[in-house]
Amino acid sequence: MLSTRSAVEPFHAMDILAEANRLKAAGHPVISLAVGQPGAPAPEKAIKAAETALRAGQIGYTDALGRVDLRQALSAYYQRRHSASVAPERIMVTTGSSAGFNLAFLALFEAGDAVAIARPGYPAYRNILKALGLVVIEVPVGPETNYTLTPDSLERAAKAAGVRLKGVLLASPANPTGTVTGRAALQQLALWCDDNGIAFISDEIYHGLTYGAEEASAVEFAPNAIVINSFSKYYRMTGWRIGWMVLPEALVRGVECVAQSLYISAPELSQIAACAALDAGSELEDYRAACRANRDFLATRLPELGLPLLSPLDGAFYAYVDVSRFTNDSMDFARRLLAETFVAATPGLDFDPLEGHRAMRISYAGTLEDMQQATGRIADWLR
Amino acid sequence: MLSTRSAVEPFHAMDILAEANRLKAAGHPVISLAVGQPGAPAPEKAIKAAETALRAGQIGYTDALGRVDLRQALSAYYQRRHSASVAPERIMVTTGSSAGFNLAFLALFEAGDAVAIARPGYPAYRNILKALGLVVIEVPVGPETNYTLTPDSLERAAKAAGVRLKGVLLASPANPTGTVTGRAALQQLALWCDDNGIAFISDEIYHGLTYGAEEASAVEFAPNAIVINSFSKYYRMTGWRIGWMVLPEALVRGVECVAQSLYISAPELSQIAACAALDAGSELEDYRAACRANRDFLATRLPELGLPLLSPLDGAFYAYVDVSRFTNDSMDFARRLLAETFVAATPGLDFDPLEGHRAMRISYAGTLEDMQQATGRIADWLR
Repeated sequence: MLSTRSAVEPFHAMDILAEANRLKAAGHPVISLAVGQPGAPAPEKAIKAAETALRAGQIGYTDALGRVDLRQALSAYYQRRHSASVAPERIMVTTGSSAGFNLAFLALFEAGDAVAIARPGYPAYRNILKALGLVVIEVPVGPETNYTLTPDSLERAAKAAGVRLKGVLLASPANPTGTVTGRAALQQLALWCDDNGIAFISDEIYHGLTYGAEEASAVEFAPNAIVINSFSKYYRMTGWRIGWMVLPEALVRGVECVAQSLYISAPELSQIAACAALDAGSELEDYRAACRANRDFLATRLPELGLPLLSPLDGAFYAYVDVSRFTNDSMDFARRLLAETFVAATPGLDFDPLEGHRAMRISYAGTLEDMQQATGRIADWLR
Repeated sequence: MLSTRSAVEPFHAMDILAEANRLKAAGHPVISLAVGQPGAPAPEKAIKAAETALRAGQIGYTDALGRVDLRQALSAYYQRRHSASVAPERIMVTTGSSAGFNLAFLALFEAGDAVAIARPGYPAYRNILKALGLVVIEVPVGPETNYTLTPDSLERAAKAAGVRLKGVLLASPANPTGTVTGRAALQQLALWCDDNGIAFISDEIYHGLTYGAEEASAVEFAPNAIVINSFSKYYRMTGWRIGWMVLPEALVRGVECVAQSLYISAPELSQIAACAALDAGSELEDYRAACRANRDFLATRLPELGLPLLSPLDGAFYAYVDVSRFTNDSMDFARRLLAETFVAATPGLDFDPLEGHRAMRISYAGTLEDMQQATGRIADWLR
């Protein structure tokens, strides 16, 4: 009865989250390292703005493109942070980056078009593309290209699959590898896409969470790219479901029309809070510092446990580790880890259908105490 | 550059809303009767619950199916209101009914499948179906069938289009016609769908807002139907983007998997507030009474202005009126009305691509004062 196109793989991290929530509700001391859920609430400024708005009774539908004040604030953000002029008219507020991906895929591609993503990579890309009838070209990335996509690897993958690419999606910082694609490499990729008539989508939802690496945005040099961003990570507003996208001018009206019907508008309270969050300065940087401390801790601790790092920890808040010393079945490993130690982490299968059975992703979005306790439990359990 | 599938018609009501917002920001005394935006904020209980949750710092991702407390409360709602047993496991919380429609269409239909909807009807049905590559069969409804779909009219429409229907979507109360399909007719339709292997989707988002008509839910007798509902209307939580669906058991896991990737989860603060809103009793009924007063006022006033009602005012909060005495171009009429009187209303073209040029939809979701002022301005303008 279920249509074939909706027969996508589960997002295993979400299954693990649901199981962790069940165990927590039953009174077990669960530590969740399964999803990218920051361990601190939204910035105080955002919460205050939401409180005020709640009492002002102004929570309604907004323009499909989003509130004007937020779109203007985002335009200023690009000026401030990237010295880039991005007109508010090119910025669309979305219901999380999830809506951004769906809208971008619908607007750019016909059914049957081939779109390249990195493997390992965020599983929702693959699943949304499939549900929309697109052909997913998973391009293996590894240390030889710093886990990022390059014109070379894309050309090879397209040739091997016998397709002409219509789109390329790259995340930097990347999930689960934490790799950051520097300005030169990002620009080269965007130019190559342009030259070859390929649409380029730049997933920048982990911007803000980099630890020394160069944080470039495609808005700086690629007016034809679609840039997707979110308030979930650096701004710690996951459950608020609020993000944004920057669109090439020629696409704005088309995407607006699809969004009017598919989403109506993003949640207004979240739009108001997000506008305030952009301005939360030091509170945001404190969270980045907390993530960096978690990262430094895990960078030493995980290898000590026999869990070597598979990729750099340059950005985002994930450690992608090799569990092959203990198992060849990361799904089973994740299930037993949760049932026996109440530590939730995500099987690599989510991110890499081919090699992920030997990997796990550990989110360090939470608190250092969580990291210490969780690795303690994992150490005891592995022994 | 825009894909053909995303080249959908604008949702004109949203365009009018955006224009109304621009005029309002410029200081004009806009009255918006363009969208179904209740004139009162969310119930006090909902706002209180949101305030408490904001300070508890608990706004994060939830299970993709939604918070367990809300799903249980919705199960109790069906018991209380419809004497129907609906297990919480069959209930999924969604990011507004918009997400419900998208998920239902993805889960039930392959690209190319034919799905029937009423004309006039909610334009987002048509636009989402088209974006997902489905064939939309618009079935004209009129006074001879009380503006609802019947097995007869569906058989005729399918035959005329030369297709085998794979799905039928019916809203009751309906937008824009306000028609309510009674229990016997709804059950007959659901049974006919079942007998013919056609998926049935029951849009019940205006439940609660009926004025004497019989309010039946498909959950009472159609275990294979997908029921879609929302907190936007009766519960006055449009901008919170929160709704739910009841799924046939066999579809739950499949829809959960698609939703994990497409939406992650519905906004958590909205889930918490919605749970409290279900319990807001008299405040909800007060709003229904206010809508009824608006309706009674407009039922007399609009025909006096030369705007006869095209359909009953049995439910929801829309009057669908005939403007043919004044224009043959409802888009132009709506634009001039807004520019010259600052009253926003929606051209019938949104709801009916064939006959809608002679109709307008007037939302009476707002306050009686708004209705009085707006009709006053319209009267002056038409003279």
